[in-house]
Amino acid sequence: MDSNAETMHSHCLEISMEAHKVVPPPHKSTIEKLKTRLKETFFPDDPLRQFKGQPMNKKLILAAQYVFPILQWGPNYSFKLFKSDIIAGLTIASLAIPQGISYAKLANLPPIVGLYSSFVPPLVYAVLGSSRDLAVGPVSIASLVLGSMLMQEVSPNKDPVLFLQLAFTSTFFAGLFQASLGFLRLGFIIDFLSKATLIGFMAGAAIIVSLQQLKGLLGITHFTKQMGIVPVLSSVFHTTKEWSWQTILMGFCFLVVLLLARHVSMKKPKLFWVSAGAPLASVILSTLLVFAAKADHHGISVIGKLQQGLNPPSWNMLHFHGTHLGLVIKTGLVTGILSLTEGIAVGRTFAALKDYQVDGNKEMIAIGLMNMVGSSTSCYVTTGAFSRSAVNHNAGAKTAASNIVMSVTVMVTLLFLMPLFQYTPNVVLGTIIVTAVVGLIDIPSAFHIWKVDKFDFVVTLCAFFGVIFISVQQGLAIAVGLSIFKILLQITRPKTVMLGKIPGTDIYRNLHQYEEASSVPGFLILSIESPINFANITYLNERILRWIEEYEAEEDMKKQSCLRFLILEMSAVSAVDTSGVSLFKVLRKAMEKKGVELILVNPLSEVMEKLLKADEACYFMRPDNIFMTVGEAVASLSSRTKGQSSSTYHEGT
Amino acid sequence: MDSNAETMHSHCLEISMEAHKVVPPPHKSTIEKLKTRLKETFFPDDPLRQFKGQPMNKKLILAAQYVFPILQWGPNYSFKLFKSDIIAGLTIASLAIPQGISYAKLANLPPIVGLYSSFVPPLVYAVLGSSRDLAVGPVSIASLVLGSMLMQEVSPNKDPVLFLQLAFTSTFFAGLFQASLGFLRLGFIIDFLSKATLIGFMAGAAIIVSLQQLKGLLGITHFTKQMGIVPVLSSVFHTTKEWSWQTILMGFCFLVVLLLARHVSMKKPKLFWVSAGAPLASVILSTLLVFAAKADHHGISVIGKLQQGLNPPSWNMLHFHGTHLGLVIKTGLVTGILSLTEGIAVGRTFAALKDYQVDGNKEMIAIGLMNMVGSSTSCYVTTGAFSRSAVNHNAGAKTAASNIVMSVTVMVTLLFLMPLFQYTPNVVLGTIIVTAVVGLIDIPSAFHIWKVDKFDFVVTLCAFFGVIFISVQQGLAIAVGLSIFKILLQITRPKTVMLGKIPGTDIYRNLHQYEEASSVPGFLILSIESPINFANITYLNERILRWIEEYEAEEDMKKQSCLRFLILEMSAVSAVDTSGVSLFKVLRKAMEKKGVELILVNPLSEVMEKLLKADEACYFMRPDNIFMTVGEAVASLSSRTKGQSSSTYHEGT
Repeated sequence: MDSNAETMHSHCLEISMEAHKVVPPPHKSTIEKLKTRLKETFFPDDPLRQFKGQPMNKKLILAAQYVFPILQWGPNYSFKLFKSDIIAGLTIASLAIPQGISYAKLANLPPIVGLYSSFVPPLVYAVLGSSRDLAVGPVSIASLVLGSMLMQEVSPNKDPVLFLQLAFTSTFFAGLFQASLGFLRLGFIIDFLSKATLIGFMAGAAIIVSLQQLKGLLGITHFTKQMGIVPVLSSVFHTTKEWSWQTILMGFCFLVVLLLARHVSMKKPKLFWVSAGAPLASVILSTLLVFAAKADHHGISVIGKLQQGLNPPSWNMLHFHGTHLGLVIKTGLVTGILSLTEGIAVGRTFAALKDYQVDGNKEMIAIGLMNMVGSSTSCYVTTGAFSRSAVNHNAGAKTAASNIVMSVTVMVTLLFLMPLFQYTPNVVLGTIIVTAVVGLIDIPSAFHIWKVDKFDFVVTLCAFFGVIFISVQQGLAIAVGLSIFKILLQITRPKTVMLGKIPGTDIYRNLHQYEEASSVPGFLILSIESPINFANITYLNERILRWIEEYEAEEDMKKQSCLRFLILEMSAVSAVDTSGVSLFKVLRKAMEKKGVELILVNPLSEVMEKLLKADEACYFMRPDNIFMTVGEAVASLSSRTKGQSSSTYHEGT
Repeated sequence: MDSNAETMHSHCLEISMEAHKVVPPPHKSTIEKLKTRLKETFFPDDPLRQFKGQPMNKKLILAAQYVFPILQWGPNYSFKLFKSDIIAGLTIASLAIPQGISYAKLANLPPIVGLYSSFVPPLVYAVLGSSRDLAVGPVSIASLVLGSMLMQEVSPNKDPVLFLQLAFTSTFFAGLFQASLGFLRLGFIIDFLSKATLIGFMAGAAIIVSLQQLKGLLGITHFTKQMGIVPVLSSVFHTTKEWSWQTILMGFCFLVVLLLARHVSMKKPKLFWVSAGAPLASVILSTLLVFAAKADHHGISVIGKLQQGLNPPSWNMLHFHGTHLGLVIKTGLVTGILSLTEGIAVGRTFAALKDYQVDGNKEMIAIGLMNMVGSSTSCYVTTGAFSRSAVNHNAGAKTAASNIVMSVTVMVTLLFLMPLFQYTPNVVLGTIIVTAVVGLIDIPSAFHIWKVDKFDFVVTLCAFFGVIFISVQQGLAIAVGLSIFKILLQITRPKTVMLGKIPGTDIYRNLHQYEEASSVPGFLILSIESPINFANITYLNERILRWIEEYEAEEDMKKQSCLRFLILEMSAVSAVDTSGVSLFKVLRKAMEKKGVELILVNPLSEVMEKLLKADEACYFMRPDNIFMTVGEAVASLSSRTKGQSSSTYHEGT
């Protein structure tokens, strides 16, 4: 190809002296455009691709497999796969049981609800879910948010039944919301929780969660019901008389053990079972200790008697009316979006590691239906948990069958082993939670954000401080608002950059980036780096006029040749709207008054189309005013002004 | 210049075989970057430019002139200018007096407040304002919104004093908000009311205002207090017994006369005085008629006795506490932003016509201070009115002195002529309002929007129907929300476009726009047309992988040569954030697995900088992976693969 490049190139040069015509895109009707637009917005992954050109019965099978991914991997399931899955399933069960009890307490719910939530939802997910690594169950952040939001209106101590009803109803709404996002293909909404937001939010939530555990870790009985760092710490230091040294000692020892176990597993991923088994081991050991030493009579509080048996139905506890409906819907929305974000992120992370695809919208439907089923079987909000999924992956899980194994293990526990937890001390549950949430504080990522983008770091900080000083929901809202504000600010104040010629080429680039580039006398070449719309036309108009004033000021000083052409390089203008189109009209008139010609270079197809539609004077129809590259524009325009008398440059206006 | 272009060009060709190095921009510290950013965000017009390099006393004079523009034009004021201004001032006064009385009634305020508001604010504006054409006074939309919002909590009939207090306090907050926007240089906030929003909103408001006038036009005494089209129409047809034929006849006649006058002035701008004088003529004529025929005893309601004398002070009526504070602040905010939008738009329009500059932020301070002063001198929200400013301009106003003339005329009216209005029928005020707001319905502009941008038209429709069916504020909120949603959607679903080579050149352009362009075998060249950030990395990742799948599917069918290079043309990527940077890492790994090399072309300076900061593997440091133009990339990469054995293309990964 490059053997004849030179001859081709010199050929091109002759043509380029005439300059290439910029053409609008081929005509498309409004309906066609709308169709393309809707497809790109809602079906960017083209999920029906595989159905094309298949016979009918094949299509039916594919459809069934699409809805129930278990039909994809189920028929090929082998004993070898099962061997891997059973080990992984037992491992995550040993983690899920203590964590389930702990997280339920974090949500101010009876501990057994945590186990219920580790039984039914994993079964539903195994049928509907397409991730092979997700370990489903309650998670810390959704538990914290659910508990704290519902506590605004109902006290879990004074009115436990109503609180439970609200929790299940919130779970139903969370599931409904998640499934609707998937069905309506609006999954992109969770993308608005940027990584910067999540890192700040999770670190803040981890601190709030840990502070809540001070109640259990110090053995305090009269603890504040607020969540902020200030009321909690003041509550802790106003109740020093209630501190129990036995509890503190026990908590400290188990915390050290659990953190050590976590450290070992992080250093050597092969030893994943150390941190995976440690919580259950701690629970067993501490229970035995308390039972043997009768420590429950010496100031160490224990879980107490737990009901035996499987999940009771709870659809009669869902209430879709009454005074708390607004709160319940809001709680469902916030916990739904938070748990969805965690579940989808976990699914995508491990899918990328093992190189398979996870369909975001389908996963949302699976997680949503799982929560809706859960809400009528005494479960609260569940999702794919990061820590447990990592253990699942490390333990060698091959399919969603590991969730079934975990679920069966929890079932056995529910049926036969519940009395054993009677003497489990609450302080150990606190240590388990603290160990789990410590991992949510990700300082290296925060540092990376600081290094790459300072504004993103501000978002992180706002999420963090918002969560610990104001409230979990408001901290999140502030950070999301700020992220969106940043995008809008970029559009409200777009960059305009002056281009210059790179010596010895036809290429024009940013004069500030390429120091060897030089400006062309008589030409002001600006590149606009944003869509042009209602939010920025006033700014762009003022800014472009200032560029011209600056050029003219330099002109006076350096005796530069007078400004003849304003070239706007439009390659980076991805869209215009009706206001944007009017900017060109205004600019053209302003330039006319100054005797400067306005030239556009390389408008993208959509921009070109709208310009022509609005261009009543047909200014941009003329090939003299619109070029394909800056090089061609400069060459053609300077040859024109040399060839003709200089007074003729007004004729085009 | 073009005489040696050919030699230059062939020279460039030799160089370009080696390809030009893409360099990052020169290093700048975070503080410097922040400074530039803040300057572009808050001081894009560089207002202190004129102060640079001036001696101290000159600086002081400039500063005084900057704060009080009257010091700029005052010293050069001449009798010739005064002659023009006095004609314009008297003309707008003849319009301002009847409109002031009418608009005050629209806001449910005593009619005299409308005259008070046409006396003090114009004087303040004449001192502080920089527009030469703005005619200041009450306007229809702000009056409507003020009246309807305050009526939500307080009835103007049952509790007129409280209502007046709330109106003045709202005016104070409106002024405070406007002045703060100017001081804090946040003027760009009003840009978010796009033209599409405003056209729909104003048409809807015009209809709501006209419907409200049915009370006066039909002579109904028991009228609904709601604003929506449904309750008003049902109220009208449920009170047919109250309709007064005398009122209807009189209203009809004057409406026809006023609309005819408007039509004449629109056809022949020289006859501007016909429509400018018609309202006052109608008021005088109808008052005489009523007085002569004693029609006030025959079912025609009249204004009644009006207090004589100048504005009483009202600072003791401002209340910054109490139950209605929230409503008052909200009302101030909404009316403040609406009146600001009108005032600034009017100022800019006429400044562009006469080719002088209006500083948006300074205008905001002027309008804000004017309203703050107004709120303590018995005035309600005022701004530069579109219709009256047009009359002012047509009548030949040269400076803001025409506002002083108008103000003095209103003063004379307040002092001596108030008894004359006692018999003015309310129905004529209704016809004056209807004639004024008819001009707000701009069907040609709505059609233009439909032609250029369908989504903008949806925004217009939403604003329109939201205002007439829901409420004025909510209609506006929906339209603004939708406009912002559109911007976010463009970023969430950015366009990716496949580029091809334009034959006989080195230029690569959209394959769908340029049908002669052709793709290069072994290369997939995509242009990304949006900033890359948290809101779109998931989409972009999926979409790029789908492009590759589509390429590979074609490859199988057409036996095309296998994909070797994925080139991303980055000219249109105006910014990246930390999430955006991570996309390249993810893509690079995905490409590595497929044996495809990821190449970037022309990243803009800021993008380049962030990429390098986050690029731990130094992938994008190597000149082999980053090029200045697509042409150079293709040339260099194809020569490389020809020169080397084809198995080596993995080495870079």
